[in-house]
Amino acid sequence: MTASVSLIDSSGLAAALEQFALERDWPRYHTARNLVLALTGEVGELAEIFQWLSDEEAARLAEDPARFTHLQEELADVLMYLVRLASVTGVDLDAAVRDKLVKNARKYPAP
Amino acid sequence: MTASVSLIDSSGLAAALEQFALERDWPRYHTARNLVLALTGEVGELAEIFQWLSDEEAARLAEDPARFTHLQEELADVLMYLVRLASVTGVDLDAAVRDKLVKNARKYPAP
Amino acid sequence: MTASVSLIDSSGLAAALEQFALERDWPRYHTARNLVLALTGEVGELAEIFQWLSDEEAARLAEDPARFTHLQEELADVLMYLVRLASVTGVDLDAAVRDKLVKNARKYPAP
Amino acid sequence: MTASVSLIDSSGLAAALEQFALERDWPRYHTARNLVLALTGEVGELAEIFQWLSDEEAARLAEDPARFTHLQEELADVLMYLVRLASVTGVDLDAAVRDKLVKNARKYPAP
Repeated sequence: MTASVSLIDSSGLAAALEQFALERDWPRYHTARNLVLALTGEVGELAEIFQWLSDEEAARLAEDPARFTHLQEELADVLMYLVRLASVTGVDLDAAVRDKLVKNARKYPAP
Repeated sequence: MTASVSLIDSSGLAAALEQFALERDWPRYHTARNLVLALTGEVGELAEIFQWLSDEEAARLAEDPARFTHLQEELADVLMYLVRLASVTGVDLDAAVRDKLVKNARKYPAP
Repeated sequence: MTASVSLIDSSGLAAALEQFALERDWPRYHTARNLVLALTGEVGELAEIFQWLSDEEAARLAEDPARFTHLQEELADVLMYLVRLASVTGVDLDAAVRDKLVKNARKYPAP
Repeated sequence: MTASVSLIDSSGLAAALEQFALERDWPRYHTARNLVLALTGEVGELAEIFQWLSDEEAARLAEDPARFTHLQEELADVLMYLVRLASVTGVDLDAAVRDKLVKNARKYPAP
């Protein structure tokens, strides 16, 4: 893996979220702690989708358009708060996942 | 915003995580419900970083290299489980955040 | 602290929740993993109450009857899933907190 | 159900946690928002116990003493932060669960 390969490019989303916040005078609310609480809230909504489903029902979620749209929305919400949190804390997500994958590969060597 | 503009491209990360899982015979563990629980675990570790910090201390986290590295790792862990969850449930994250931003703009119109 | 002193008595709530579940044919849904996901969902709703509040606003939450009622409901929901989870996994919460307090006192000795 | 019946009595635990905090000069850290983040952290640790388990393995957790002790500790941690959060926000947990059970019985009438 070379440093020039990007694993994830979230720059467009980060810029869109920054602009969205600026247009609504929201940056003052987007402290790291607030965003962690907001992220927790969205992960809770994601968990609610799956709480009473069997593994079989969860695997067939895409067959139910209403539920699948709900899942897309909650995944989007979690991702947006995560990207926003990375922006306000100054974390480069691409570098972060690259480093973590190297650590994980050392921790869990492939057989 | 046109359909051709990508807000986030996580295809490289999704492929790397798939390969990482395959090499370790992990895909059978990567059910949607398991990944939601794993995501919850990582969000918990992220919350722990901030639980006793003032907003001022949280804003200066980047000044403390050890804490900042820890933050990078936890953000990476949350992102990796989120991208993996999107893969196994068949959700296109770029389309999901694009749709959600449109809904959010309707729900919270800019002044 | 002697063994005969009870720190928490949740037996009435545990029995009420068991009866409530039985009357609705819900025990088959109350697996440990489902209850952890449901608990995560409720903690998310609790976090949402506080996500955009300053510490000052959070401290004055009791002055806003609607918000305070909402807080009571979310705390109740978290507590009910927690007590239910303890019931189905066979954990004695009173013994658990007693043991944990002893461990915490060793880990964080009072000055 | 009469008003005189207590569903849960956490007064002993609340007092023990208050004393524990006072002896360590911790009350200044025990703001509502900090405690919600700490609660999120503990729920994450609880989720980690169950993340890769099948429902069958989760149901047999009590057979593995080390894992069962770990489960007891995490349930205790969640409960302690929840009771502490109720204390600092002024919520009466017994009244809260009583009210919520009445609302739940209306929302989900028994057949």
